Amino acid sequence: MNTQLQLQTDHWGLHEFTSQVSTVVHRGGIEEGLCSLFVQHTSASLLIQENADPSARHDLENWLNRLVKEHDPLYTHTQEGADDMPAHIKTALTNSCLTIPIINHQLALGTWQGIFLWEHRHQGGRRSVIVHID
Amino acid sequence: MNTQLQLQTDHWGLHEFTSQVSTVVHRGGIEEGLCSLFVQHTSASLLIQENADPSARHDLENWLNRLVKEHDPLYTHTQEGADDMPAHIKTALTNSCLTIPIINHQLALGTWQGIFLWEHRHQGGRRSVIVHID
Amino acid sequence: MNTQLQLQTDHWGLHEFTSQVSTVVHRGGIEEGLCSLFVQHTSASLLIQENADPSARHDLENWLNRLVKEHDPLYTHTQEGADDMPAHIKTALTNSCLTIPIINHQLALGTWQGIFLWEHRHQGGRRSVIVHID
Repeated sequence: MNTQLQLQTDHWGLHEFTSQVSTVVHRGGIEEGLCSLFVQHTSASLLIQENADPSARHDLENWLNRLVKEHDPLYTHTQEGADDMPAHIKTALTNSCLTIPIINHQLALGTWQGIFLWEHRHQGGRRSVIVHID
Repeated sequence: MNTQLQLQTDHWGLHEFTSQVSTVVHRGGIEEGLCSLFVQHTSASLLIQENADPSARHDLENWLNRLVKEHDPLYTHTQEGADDMPAHIKTALTNSCLTIPIINHQLALGTWQGIFLWEHRHQGGRRSVIVHID
Repeated sequence: MNTQLQLQTDHWGLHEFTSQVSTVVHRGGIEEGLCSLFVQHTSASLLIQENADPSARHDLENWLNRLVKEHDPLYTHTQEGADDMPAHIKTALTNSCLTIPIINHQLALGTWQGIFLWEHRHQGGRRSVIVHID
Protein backbone atom coordinates (compact mmCIF):
# COMPACT_ATOMS: atom_id res chain seq x y z
CA MET A 1 0.00 0.00 0.00
CA ASN A 2 2.83 2.44 0.88
CA THR A 3 6.05 2.42 -1.13
CA GLN A 4 9.01 4.69 -0.49
CA LEU A 5 10.76 6.14 -3.54
CA GLN A 6 14.28 7.48 -3.06
CA LEU A 7 15.03 10.15 -5.65
CA GLN A 8 18.53 11.55 -6.05
CA THR A 9 18.59 15.17 -7.24
CA ASP A 10 21.95 16.77 -7.92
CA HIS A 11 20.77 20.31 -8.62
CA TRP A 12 17.71 22.46 -8.15
CA GLY A 13 14.74 22.50 -10.54
CA LEU A 14 11.93 20.23 -11.72
CA HIS A 15 12.73 16.51 -11.95
CA GLU A 16 10.13 14.30 -13.60
CA PHE A 17 9.50 10.92 -11.95
CA THR A 18 6.22 9.87 -13.59
CA SER A 19 7.69 6.54 -14.71
CA GLN A 20 8.74 5.57 -11.17
CA VAL A 21 5.23 6.25 -9.88
CA SER A 22 3.70 4.32 -12.80
CA THR A 23 5.87 1.33 -11.93
CA VAL A 24 4.53 1.34 -8.36
CA VAL A 25 0.95 1.58 -9.68
CA HIS A 26 1.46 -1.32 -12.11
CA ARG A 27 2.97 -3.50 -9.39
CA GLY A 28 0.09 -2.66 -7.06
CA GLY A 29 -2.35 -4.34 -9.44
CA ILE A 30 -5.22 -1.96 -8.61
CA GLU A 31 -7.66 -1.42 -11.48
CA GLU A 32 -9.58 1.61 -10.14
CA GLY A 33 -8.30 3.64 -7.23
CA LEU A 34 -6.25 6.55 -6.01
CA CYS A 35 -2.51 7.17 -5.91
CA SER A 36 -1.34 9.62 -3.22
CA LEU A 37 2.16 11.08 -3.14
CA PHE A 38 3.87 12.74 -0.18
CA VAL A 39 7.34 14.31 -0.08
CA GLN A 40 9.04 14.03 3.32
CA HIS A 41 10.97 17.32 3.10
CA THR A 42 10.27 21.05 3.46
CA SER A 43 12.78 22.22 0.84
CA ALA A 44 11.45 20.14 -2.06
CA SER A 45 7.89 19.91 -3.36
CA LEU A 46 5.60 18.04 -5.76
CA LEU A 47 3.94 19.33 -8.90
CA ILE A 48 1.84 18.19 -11.84
CA GLN A 49 3.10 20.09 -14.88
CA GLU A 50 3.59 20.13 -18.63
CA ASN A 51 6.09 17.43 -19.57
CA ALA A 52 6.26 17.97 -23.33
CA ASP A 53 8.27 21.16 -23.82
CA PRO A 54 11.27 21.78 -21.48
CA SER A 55 10.95 25.55 -22.07
CA ALA A 56 7.74 25.59 -20.00
CA ARG A 57 9.59 24.04 -17.05
CA HIS A 58 12.51 26.43 -17.37
CA ASP A 59 10.24 29.47 -17.48
CA LEU A 60 8.36 28.19 -14.44
CA GLU A 61 11.62 27.69 -12.52
CA ASN A 62 12.91 31.12 -13.51
CA TRP A 63 9.63 32.84 -12.66
CA LEU A 64 9.54 31.32 -9.16
CA ASN A 65 13.24 32.07 -8.59
CA ARG A 66 12.52 35.73 -9.40
CA LEU A 67 9.48 35.86 -7.09
CA VAL A 68 11.23 34.15 -4.17
CA LYS A 69 14.69 35.69 -4.09
CA GLU A 70 17.78 34.66 -2.19
CA HIS A 71 19.45 37.19 0.14
CA ASP A 72 16.14 38.93 0.82
CA PRO A 73 16.75 41.35 3.74
CA LEU A 74 13.44 40.11 5.20
CA TYR A 75 14.96 36.71 6.07
CA THR A 76 16.20 35.97 9.59
CA HIS A 77 16.46 32.19 9.02
CA THR A 78 19.80 32.30 7.18
CA GLN A 79 22.08 29.83 9.00
CA GLU A 80 21.38 26.91 6.65
CA GLY A 81 22.40 28.74 3.49
CA ALA A 82 21.04 31.37 1.11
CA ASP A 83 18.84 28.80 -0.65
CA ASP A 84 17.19 27.41 2.49
CA MET A 85 14.54 30.02 3.32
CA PRO A 86 13.56 30.45 -0.37
CA ALA A 87 13.20 26.64 -0.48
CA HIS A 88 10.69 26.67 2.39
CA ILE A 89 8.67 29.47 0.74
CA LYS A 90 8.65 27.71 -2.66
CA THR A 91 7.49 24.51 -0.98
CA ALA A 92 4.66 26.45 0.71
CA LEU A 93 3.56 27.92 -2.65
CA THR A 94 3.50 24.53 -4.40
CA ASN A 95 2.62 21.12 -2.84
CA SER A 96 3.85 18.57 -0.34
CA CYS A 97 1.23 16.05 -1.48
CA LEU A 98 -0.72 15.07 -4.59
CA THR A 99 -3.58 12.65 -5.29
CA ILE A 100 -4.01 11.15 -8.77
CA PRO A 101 -6.78 8.74 -9.78
CA ILE A 102 -5.96 5.27 -11.11
CA ILE A 103 -8.15 4.12 -14.03
CA ASN A 104 -7.63 0.85 -15.91
CA HIS A 105 -4.48 0.08 -13.90
CA GLN A 106 -2.91 3.41 -14.96
CA LEU A 107 -2.40 6.91 -13.57
CA ALA A 108 -5.21 9.05 -15.06
CA LEU A 109 -2.89 11.86 -16.13
CA GLY A 110 -3.85 14.18 -18.96
CA THR A 111 -1.95 14.00 -22.25
CA TRP A 112 0.56 16.70 -21.31
CA GLN A 113 0.85 16.06 -17.59
CA GLY A 114 3.86 14.69 -15.77
CA ILE A 115 4.66 14.28 -12.06
CA PHE A 116 7.62 16.32 -10.87
CA LEU A 117 9.75 16.61 -7.77
CA TRP A 118 10.78 20.23 -7.46
CA GLU A 119 14.16 20.42 -5.78
CA HIS A 120 14.63 23.85 -4.19
CA ARG A 121 18.19 23.46 -2.84
CA HIS A 122 21.09 24.23 -5.19
CA GLN A 123 22.95 20.99 -4.49
CA GLY A 124 19.92 18.73 -4.29
CA GLY A 125 20.15 15.57 -2.22
CA ARG A 126 18.44 12.28 -1.54
CA ARG A 127 14.69 12.91 -1.47
CA SER A 128 12.05 10.54 -0.13
CA VAL A 129 8.55 10.39 -1.63
CA ILE A 130 5.91 8.02 -0.22
CA VAL A 131 3.53 6.52 -2.79
CA HIS A 132 0.26 5.26 -1.34
CA ILE A 133 -2.12 3.31 -3.57
CA ASP A 134 -5.58 2.18 -2.63
CA MET B 1 -15.55 4.92 -8.15
CA ASN B 2 -14.09 7.26 -10.80
CA THR B 3 -16.38 9.60 -12.75
CA GLN B 4 -15.23 11.96 -15.46
CA LEU B 5 -16.83 15.43 -15.51
CA GLN B 6 -16.57 17.41 -18.74
CA LEU B 7 -16.75 21.12 -18.01
CA GLN B 8 -17.04 23.65 -20.79
CA THR B 9 -15.42 27.01 -20.01
CA ASP B 10 -15.73 29.80 -22.54
CA HIS B 11 -13.47 32.36 -20.87
CA TRP B 12 -10.86 32.54 -18.17
CA GLY B 13 -11.63 32.88 -14.46
CA LEU B 14 -13.18 30.90 -11.62
CA HIS B 15 -16.08 28.58 -12.56
CA GLU B 16 -17.98 26.97 -9.70
CA PHE B 17 -18.96 23.33 -10.18
CA THR B 18 -19.87 22.29 -6.62
CA SER B 19 -23.30 21.02 -7.71
CA GLN B 20 -21.85 18.67 -10.34
CA VAL B 21 -19.51 17.15 -7.73
CA SER B 22 -22.37 16.86 -5.23
CA THR B 23 -24.42 14.95 -7.79
CA VAL B 24 -21.61 12.41 -8.22
CA VAL B 25 -21.34 12.04 -4.43
CA HIS B 26 -25.09 11.51 -4.03
CA ARG B 27 -25.16 8.91 -6.80
CA GLY B 28 -22.18 7.12 -5.22
CA GLY B 29 -24.24 6.38 -2.12
CA ILE B 30 -21.27 6.59 0.26
CA GLU B 31 -22.17 7.76 3.77
CA GLU B 32 -18.67 8.49 5.12
CA GLY B 33 -15.68 8.79 2.85
CA LEU B 34 -13.46 10.94 0.74
CA CYS B 35 -14.02 12.70 -2.58
CA SER B 36 -10.86 13.36 -4.61
CA LEU B 37 -10.80 15.67 -7.63
CA PHE B 38 -8.14 15.79 -10.33
CA VAL B 39 -7.97 18.15 -13.34
CA GLN B 40 -6.32 16.61 -16.40
CA HIS B 41 -4.77 19.85 -17.72
CA THR B 42 -1.83 22.11 -16.94
CA SER B 43 -3.52 25.39 -17.89
CA ALA B 44 -6.53 25.06 -15.56
CA SER B 45 -6.58 24.35 -11.84
CA LEU B 46 -8.84 23.51 -8.89
CA LEU B 47 -9.64 25.68 -5.89
CA ILE B 48 -11.82 25.77 -2.80
CA GLN B 49 -12.95 29.37 -2.39
CA GLU B 50 -15.59 31.75 -1.11
CA ASN B 51 -18.76 31.22 -3.13
CA ALA B 52 -21.01 33.84 -1.54
CA ASP B 53 -19.76 37.19 -2.84
CA PRO B 54 -18.61 37.40 -6.48
CA SER B 55 -16.37 40.39 -5.62
CA ALA B 56 -14.03 38.04 -3.69
CA ARG B 57 -13.59 35.90 -6.80
CA HIS B 58 -13.00 38.87 -9.05
CA ASP B 59 -10.39 40.34 -6.72
CA LEU B 60 -8.65 36.96 -6.53
CA GLU B 61 -8.60 36.68 -10.33
CA ASN B 62 -7.30 40.23 -10.75
CA TRP B 63 -4.66 39.80 -8.07
CA LEU B 64 -3.26 36.64 -9.70
CA ASN B 65 -3.40 38.21 -13.17
CA ARG B 66 -1.29 41.09 -11.86
CA LEU B 67 1.23 38.74 -10.19
CA VAL B 68 1.57 36.44 -13.21
CA LYS B 69 1.70 38.78 -16.17
CA GLU B 70 1.44 38.05 -19.86
CA HIS B 71 4.27 39.18 -22.18
CA ASP B 72 6.84 38.85 -19.39
CA PRO B 73 10.29 39.15 -21.04
CA LEU B 74 11.38 36.20 -18.86
CA TYR B 75 9.26 33.78 -20.91
CA THR B 76 10.80 31.65 -23.66
CA HIS B 77 7.78 29.31 -23.97
CA THR B 78 5.66 31.65 -26.10
CA GLN B 79 4.59 29.64 -29.14
CA GLU B 80 1.21 28.59 -27.73
CA GLY B 81 0.03 32.14 -27.05
CA ALA B 82 0.55 34.93 -24.54
CA ASP B 83 -1.77 33.28 -22.00
CA ASP B 84 -0.11 29.84 -22.09
CA MET B 85 2.96 30.30 -19.89
CA PRO B 86 1.01 32.40 -17.32
CA ALA B 87 -1.54 29.55 -17.28
CA HIS B 88 1.14 26.99 -16.33
CA ILE B 89 2.46 29.25 -13.56
CA LYS B 90 -1.03 29.92 -12.17
CA THR B 91 -1.72 26.18 -12.16
CA ALA B 92 1.53 25.60 -10.24
CA LEU B 93 0.54 28.21 -7.63
CA THR B 94 -2.94 26.72 -7.08
CA ASN B 95 -3.94 23.01 -7.29
CA SER B 96 -4.28 20.14 -9.74
CA CYS B 97 -6.04 18.00 -7.12
CA LEU B 98 -8.29 18.38 -4.07
CA THR B 99 -9.59 15.96 -1.42
CA ILE B 100 -12.86 16.72 0.39
CA PRO B 101 -14.39 14.53 3.11
CA ILE B 102 -17.88 13.06 2.69
CA ILE B 103 -20.03 13.11 5.84
CA ASN B 104 -23.68 11.99 5.94
CA HIS B 105 -23.70 11.42 2.17
CA GLN B 106 -22.60 15.04 1.54
CA LEU B 107 -19.44 16.97 0.77
CA ALA B 108 -18.22 18.37 4.12
CA LEU B 109 -17.70 21.88 2.79
CA GLY B 110 -17.78 24.87 5.12
CA THR B 111 -20.68 27.33 4.92
CA TRP B 112 -18.93 29.68 2.50
CA GLN B 113 -16.90 27.16 0.51
CA GLY B 114 -17.44 26.21 -3.12
CA ILE B 115 -15.42 24.07 -5.54
CA PHE B 116 -14.05 25.95 -8.53
CA LEU B 117 -12.34 25.15 -11.80
CA TRP B 118 -9.95 28.01 -12.53
CA GLU B 119 -9.63 28.40 -16.28
CA HIS B 120 -6.35 30.16 -17.11
CA ARG B 121 -6.69 30.39 -20.93
CA HIS B 122 -8.58 33.36 -22.37
CA GLN B 123 -10.81 31.27 -24.62
CA GLY B 124 -11.37 28.40 -22.22
CA GLY B 125 -12.17 24.98 -23.61
CA ARG B 126 -13.44 21.56 -22.68
CA ARG B 127 -11.92 20.60 -19.33
CA SER B 128 -11.87 17.15 -17.81
CA VAL B 129 -12.04 16.62 -14.05
CA ILE B 130 -11.94 13.11 -12.55
CA VAL B 131 -14.04 12.63 -9.41
CA HIS B 132 -12.97 9.67 -7.27
CA ILE B 133 -15.15 8.66 -4.30
CA ASP B 134 -14.29 6.03 -1.76
CA MET C 1 -13.37 7.58 9.81
CA ASN C 2 -14.04 11.35 9.92
CA THR C 3 -13.14 13.35 13.04
CA GLN C 4 -13.71 17.07 13.46
CA LEU C 5 -10.95 19.03 15.20
CA GLN C 6 -11.88 22.44 16.60
CA LEU C 7 -8.81 24.67 16.75
CA GLN C 8 -8.91 28.04 18.48
CA THR C 9 -6.56 30.63 16.98
CA ASP C 10 -6.30 34.01 18.63
CA HIS C 11 -4.06 35.74 16.11
CA TRP C 12 -2.85 35.27 12.57
CA GLY C 13 0.11 33.08 11.61
CA LEU C 14 1.13 29.43 11.54
CA HIS C 15 -0.25 27.22 14.33
CA GLU C 16 1.14 23.70 14.60
CA PHE C 17 -1.38 20.95 15.38
CA THR C 18 0.60 17.82 14.47
CA SER C 19 -0.04 16.28 17.90
CA GLN C 20 -3.84 16.59 17.59
CA VAL C 21 -3.74 14.83 14.21
CA SER C 22 -1.42 12.14 15.60
CA THR C 23 -3.90 11.48 18.40
CA VAL C 24 -6.70 10.89 15.88
CA VAL C 25 -4.44 8.54 13.89
CA HIS C 26 -3.47 6.55 17.00
CA ARG C 27 -7.11 6.20 18.07
CA GLY C 28 -8.08 5.07 14.56
CA GLY C 29 -5.89 1.99 14.94
CA ILE C 30 -4.95 1.87 11.24
CA GLU C 31 -1.52 0.37 10.57
CA GLU C 32 -1.08 1.40 6.90
CA GLY C 33 -3.27 4.02 5.29
CA LEU C 34 -3.87 7.64 4.48
CA CYS C 35 -4.78 10.62 6.62
CA SER C 36 -6.60 13.44 4.79
CA LEU C 37 -7.11 16.88 6.31
CA PHE C 38 -9.62 19.51 5.18
CA VAL C 39 -10.11 23.02 6.59
CA GLN C 40 -13.71 24.26 6.37
CA HIS C 41 -12.84 27.94 5.88
CA THR C 42 -11.60 30.23 3.10
CA SER C 43 -9.56 32.56 5.32
CA ALA C 44 -7.36 29.89 6.91
CA SER C 45 -5.30 27.19 5.23
CA LEU C 46 -3.22 24.06 5.83
CA LEU C 47 0.51 23.62 5.36
CA ILE C 48 3.29 21.10 5.92
CA GLN C 49 6.34 23.08 7.05
CA GLU C 50 9.55 23.11 9.02
CA ASN C 51 8.72 22.74 12.71
CA ALA C 52 12.19 22.92 14.22
CA ASP C 53 13.22 26.57 13.99
CA PRO C 54 10.55 29.25 14.62
CA SER C 55 12.53 31.74 12.51
CA ALA C 56 11.61 29.78 9.34
CA ARG C 57 7.91 30.17 10.18
CA HIS C 58 8.24 33.86 10.93
CA ASP C 59 10.08 34.54 7.67
CA LEU C 60 7.44 32.60 5.76
CA GLU C 61 4.64 34.60 7.40
CA ASN C 62 6.40 37.91 6.75
CA TRP C 63 7.19 37.02 3.15
CA LEU C 64 3.56 36.15 2.37
CA ASN C 65 2.30 39.26 4.20
CA ARG C 66 4.54 41.36 1.97
CA LEU C 67 3.39 39.61 -1.22
CA VAL C 68 -0.32 39.80 -0.35
CA LYS C 69 -0.79 43.26 1.08
CA GLU C 70 -3.73 44.77 2.91
CA HIS C 71 -5.34 47.95 1.54
CA ASP C 72 -4.39 47.04 -2.02
CA PRO C 73 -6.27 49.47 -4.32
CA LEU C 74 -7.08 46.46 -6.53
CA TYR C 75 -9.52 45.10 -3.91
CA THR C 76 -13.27 45.71 -4.22
CA HIS C 77 -14.21 43.06 -1.62
CA THR C 78 -13.49 45.23 1.43
CA GLN C 79 -16.62 45.12 3.59
CA GLU C 80 -15.42 42.30 5.84
CA GLY C 81 -12.23 44.06 6.90
CA ALA C 82 -8.78 44.85 5.54
CA ASP C 83 -7.52 41.34 6.32
CA ASP C 84 -10.36 39.47 4.57
CA MET C 85 -9.41 39.67 0.89
CA PRO C 86 -5.70 39.00 1.63
CA ALA C 87 -6.89 35.97 3.65
CA HIS C 88 -8.72 34.53 0.63
CA ILE C 89 -5.68 35.07 -1.61
CA LYS C 90 -3.30 33.49 0.92
CA THR C 91 -5.63 30.50 1.21
CA ALA C 92 -5.63 30.16 -2.60
CA LEU C 93 -1.81 30.19 -2.67
CA THR C 94 -1.46 27.51 0.04
CA ASN C 95 -3.84 24.56 0.70
CA SER C 96 -7.34 23.75 1.88
CA CYS C 97 -6.53 20.03 2.06
CA LEU C 98 -3.57 17.73 2.70
CA THR C 99 -3.03 13.96 2.46
CA ILE C 100 -0.37 12.27 4.59
CA PRO C 101 0.42 8.54 4.55
CA ILE C 102 0.12 6.44 7.71
CA ILE C 103 2.92 3.86 8.20
CA ASN C 104 3.25 1.65 11.28
CA HIS C 105 0.30 3.40 12.95
CA GLN C 106 2.00 6.81 12.58
CA LEU C 107 1.90 9.83 10.29
CA ALA C 108 4.78 9.37 7.83
CA LEU C 109 6.11 12.90 8.27
CA GLY C 110 9.76 13.70 7.57
CA THR C 111 12.09 14.55 10.42
CA TRP C 112 11.53 18.31 10.18
CA GLN C 113 7.91 18.37 9.05
CA GLY C 114 4.96 19.55 11.08
CA ILE C 115 1.28 20.12 10.20
CA PHE C 116 0.15 23.72 10.49
CA LEU C 117 -3.10 25.65 10.38
CA TRP C 118 -2.34 29.02 8.83
CA GLU C 119 -4.71 31.59 10.28
CA HIS C 120 -5.00 34.56 7.90
CA ARG C 121 -7.33 36.81 9.94
CA HIS C 122 -5.78 39.12 12.54
CA GLN C 123 -8.12 38.07 15.34
CA GLY C 124 -8.26 34.39 14.50
CA GLY C 125 -11.30 32.40 15.54
CA ARG C 126 -12.62 28.88 15.97
CA ARG C 127 -11.42 26.83 13.01
CA SER C 128 -12.74 23.43 12.00
CA VAL C 129 -10.48 20.82 10.39
CA ILE C 130 -11.87 17.44 9.31
CA VAL C 131 -9.48 14.49 9.72
CA HIS C 132 -10.32 11.50 7.54
CA ILE C 133 -8.37 8.25 8.05
CA ASP C 134 -8.65 5.18 5.90
